[in-house]
Amino acid sequence: MGDSAALRRLLAAALLGALTGPLLGATAAGPPARDVLFQVEPIDALMAGLYDGTLPLAELTRHGDFGLGTFDRLDGEMVVLAGVVHQVTADGLVRAANPALTTPFAAVTFFDRDITAPIRKEMNLAALKEFLDGLLPTKNLLYAVRIDGTFSAVQTRSVPAQSKPYRKLVEVTASQPVFELTDVQGTIVGFRCPYYVQGINVPGYHLHFLSADRRRGGHILDCTVKTGEATVDGTAELMLTIPRGGAEFTTDFQPGAAGDLQKVEGK
Amino acid sequence: MGDSAALRRLLAAALLGALTGPLLGATAAGPPARDVLFQVEPIDALMAGLYDGTLPLAELTRHGDFGLGTFDRLDGEMVVLAGVVHQVTADGLVRAANPALTTPFAAVTFFDRDITAPIRKEMNLAALKEFLDGLLPTKNLLYAVRIDGTFSAVQTRSVPAQSKPYRKLVEVTASQPVFELTDVQGTIVGFRCPYYVQGINVPGYHLHFLSADRRRGGHILDCTVKTGEATVDGTAELMLTIPRGGAEFTTDFQPGAAGDLQKVEGK
Repeated sequence: MGDSAALRRLLAAALLGALTGPLLGATAAGPPARDVLFQVEPIDALMAGLYDGTLPLAELTRHGDFGLGTFDRLDGEMVVLAGVVHQVTADGLVRAANPALTTPFAAVTFFDRDITAPIRKEMNLAALKEFLDGLLPTKNLLYAVRIDGTFSAVQTRSVPAQSKPYRKLVEVTASQPVFELTDVQGTIVGFRCPYYVQGINVPGYHLHFLSADRRRGGHILDCTVKTGEATVDGTAELMLTIPRGGAEFTTDFQPGAAGDLQKVEGK
Repeated sequence: MGDSAALRRLLAAALLGALTGPLLGATAAGPPARDVLFQVEPIDALMAGLYDGTLPLAELTRHGDFGLGTFDRLDGEMVVLAGVVHQVTADGLVRAANPALTTPFAAVTFFDRDITAPIRKEMNLAALKEFLDGLLPTKNLLYAVRIDGTFSAVQTRSVPAQSKPYRKLVEVTASQPVFELTDVQGTIVGFRCPYYVQGINVPGYHLHFLSADRRRGGHILDCTVKTGEATVDGTAELMLTIPRGGAEFTTDFQPGAAGDLQKVEGK
């Protein structure tokens, strides 16, 4: 990269170091630290079909006000924004989730505005990811990503609640309901994770959507953003928990087949 | 597996669920929780040659009294036992490490005796791993492993302090000093991690050794245990931290070549 890009990245790194909060706050005394990506269950457990919820939403939101995931029995896509857990069900509707519901997979953090950048030109999803990558000082860390904007198109999906015996996630998403939103204002809520979270979370970008009127949303398959603002919250701590009582304590799960995660996450 | 083995594993799972401590204690108010595997840096950063220490030992031991790792500039193998950080340097000697030293990679937990089993027959390292696997209710969780015993042989290695520009770890360990201990009493200190920690920690067993007289030790390449006791501490929480200020904030590291981790960890 050129000198100016290198300089910009160094400055971003210095800024991020200053902003990622107290060193190791997460396991220190006091309330949950803000700069931890808190995660329930390795994603490979979900890939393997372990859909029984293990952590109540009321507990999840103690660890973050921003994030994504799914619900007990895979009953919809989760979008956590400003502390509210939104449930995008398979019929495409959105409701505030009952805090007594549980989740088998979710990732949250307390969102801080470490890096912001205006979006002034239309970008498809691939261009948007490239634009976001350009804001990051390094790909080694974990980032929460928020984009508030106007979108000419957003293609989302959700997933229907499953019954036992559960099928693998790649089989469920093969027939997922897909929603086409056009000319919509809303917020992208998601994460960018480094390659080394493979098996635990999704390497690269994992993005969900919630419309400004809180009536539409889901897991983003594609989108075109027109204008808006991108905000990135860097975190250098990952907390993975496997809550007690789930099948994870008795059933070994295995790595999914190569390419399964891409099938599940993409179009 | 047979019915009795299945039953034993179910009982072990129930026991482990009861013993792994308060749910999500790690990020709750109060002192650091006991049942978290607390880890400094992804192992891929170490593999890539990022050897500058980032976390003081005095901070590391706030998160655990048992574990392993290495030191700033790769200056020896770390064995944390009963809260003391032992430094096995490349000359094969052992000393209590200065708490002001830093580490670029370490994993610790507070050790609890969740599962114990006597060792009554001689086993080589492969047989010992199989024996330990048989004690575990599932391979999905993370386990701290402690074996106190009499060993007819222990082959260990350490690593010498490096100078910049740092070479990759697989190049450093290619010429590592190896120590052959015979008829020695001591303790194996290590972890068994699930496959999904790949890139973050070592999948499978990662074991260090410390002699009962605290004069010999290192990273275990091979061993034969005669008698002793195996103790396993299950944990369902992994806390990964990348401390601020290291090269990890500015330098992207990449996955090592296939097989490099096996070369680094094994004989």
